[in-house]
Amino acid sequence: MMDVAGFSFNKLVVAGVGLIGGSLARALRERDEIGGARQVIGIGRSTDSTARALALGVIDQAVALTDEAALREALAGADIVLLAAPVAQTQPLLERIAPWLDAATIITDAGSTKSDAVAAAHAALGSRAGQFVPGHPIAGREASGVDAALPDLYVGRNVVLCPMAGNTPEALERIASMWRAAGATVHEMSSVEHDRVFAAVSHLPHVLSFALVEQILASPDAALKFSFAAGGFRDFTRIAASSPEMWRDVCVANRVALLEELDAYTAVLTRLRAAINTADGAELEAVFARSRTARMAWQPGGQPVRLDDTAA
Amino acid sequence: MMDVAGFSFNKLVVAGVGLIGGSLARALRERDEIGGARQVIGIGRSTDSTARALALGVIDQAVALTDEAALREALAGADIVLLAAPVAQTQPLLERIAPWLDAATIITDAGSTKSDAVAAAHAALGSRAGQFVPGHPIAGREASGVDAALPDLYVGRNVVLCPMAGNTPEALERIASMWRAAGATVHEMSSVEHDRVFAAVSHLPHVLSFALVEQILASPDAALKFSFAAGGFRDFTRIAASSPEMWRDVCVANRVALLEELDAYTAVLTRLRAAINTADGAELEAVFARSRTARMAWQPGGQPVRLDDTAA
Repeated sequence: MMDVAGFSFNKLVVAGVGLIGGSLARALRERDEIGGARQVIGIGRSTDSTARALALGVIDQAVALTDEAALREALAGADIVLLAAPVAQTQPLLERIAPWLDAATIITDAGSTKSDAVAAAHAALGSRAGQFVPGHPIAGREASGVDAALPDLYVGRNVVLCPMAGNTPEALERIASMWRAAGATVHEMSSVEHDRVFAAVSHLPHVLSFALVEQILASPDAALKFSFAAGGFRDFTRIAASSPEMWRDVCVANRVALLEELDAYTAVLTRLRAAINTADGAELEAVFARSRTARMAWQPGGQPVRLDDTAA
Repeated sequence: MMDVAGFSFNKLVVAGVGLIGGSLARALRERDEIGGARQVIGIGRSTDSTARALALGVIDQAVALTDEAALREALAGADIVLLAAPVAQTQPLLERIAPWLDAATIITDAGSTKSDAVAAAHAALGSRAGQFVPGHPIAGREASGVDAALPDLYVGRNVVLCPMAGNTPEALERIASMWRAAGATVHEMSSVEHDRVFAAVSHLPHVLSFALVEQILASPDAALKFSFAAGGFRDFTRIAASSPEMWRDVCVANRVALLEELDAYTAVLTRLRAAINTADGAELEAVFARSRTARMAWQPGGQPVRLDDTAA
């Protein structure tokens, strides 16, 4: 049994009840070991997704973002507010929530970019920005929406918290214990470090994958090419089926780090282009062999290295 | 039961008994419906792999490429010779085989590039180049070597033949029926068309995948990055665990078409870079949405479109 010691809640508000928010709600509602009243309220831009979440039993109550009175009531006495919408909505959501935010409520988010979330908290919450604990669960599925939500989505997965000025140790521990109660392992790093790491291992590969499909689509023999694409293409482009809205927001929110990675990647491609052009088999084999060794040694979901084991 | 009508053989010679050559040998040896003496002789650069193939029962006899007398005897009366080594070895293998090649023997190959194979056949076989039928089975596994060979590796897969000047209809049909007997669907296209299609959907993605791992490896916080890489990275870089020797040869052999695709891809990246840099969310979302729609509509192993359905 996983350690859920120290976590209980009476009222959780989830803004954006899709795969990510819905899965956390299900995880916390369906574990008998977790104490408290365990009421979960879902807030949505449209009533469609929250109505569906209500029908599925993922939430106890659905509130439209436009319904001020209901929003105010939902937020009164909330232990935790989780923002689980595309990251461009973080600041508008915080601004919407701010007027009715209890001093004891902790807000967190599940976005793939963190420097922008920190800036959004400062802009929207001002002196109360410390009530916001930036977070990123490293989990997902190809399917999206609340129908795809799973109570065990976070079991064995990593969650990164990026403490910001004003976060109390108690607030950080409360959010960490929430994710641990859902089965995750919690790590901390700075928002800048987070954004650089995920630009490299997640955001850039998504852009590269979308770009390959875009390129083939633009070629005159696209249908022929797609018809002979096989397993390598399938895996390389699986992430090109990801949500355009989510990835649009990630690219814009993390553009500084992403552009650095994209430029470094383009430099590698330029080097490989030269080796291909000059038929430099030795250089190509050296790069491919290094990559293969590293890829074969890599373990998905492996325990992250300690931060002090790595150079900055 | 698959249609194996019209295919039987007495003596098959496989040069390079690894995953690809070994799987074809197993497929043809283990199907009772196939007639003939069904003797399979393996030829290898080293005796290690052929000895292992012999021990596994994949071949009946192992011959070292350096053993001229044994090579001559192996080729005498051979129905078919399959070249299944990295593509840079196609021409040296053909030169080695040429002196003892029977007029009735058909040679084919399983390389991922075809224009180079056509050139190799002309260079090595001269006026007998028509005895060589260029082929490419679109199948593979992450594991390599004869231990990974499977009798059903080609079942339901596509094989592309690229007819060249001098190939008789009978020779083409014989190789096509061999692959059909192994369970594959056979298609024809020109070697130039083949190389352009596979540069786009296979060779370029391999280069891009190797390049991402290379880039992360070169960064000062590589260990941290790898430790937080997750499912998207896993799928995007699965093909970066492919054989460095094979992909070195493919990149060199198909460098003209590959560079064209790489340059077109770099142009797409340049366009996306500009959109990221200017926070042009509408442009990013449009590209991502197009790619997602195309990727979701794509079916792996789907029936290739008719060639006359596509523009040239």
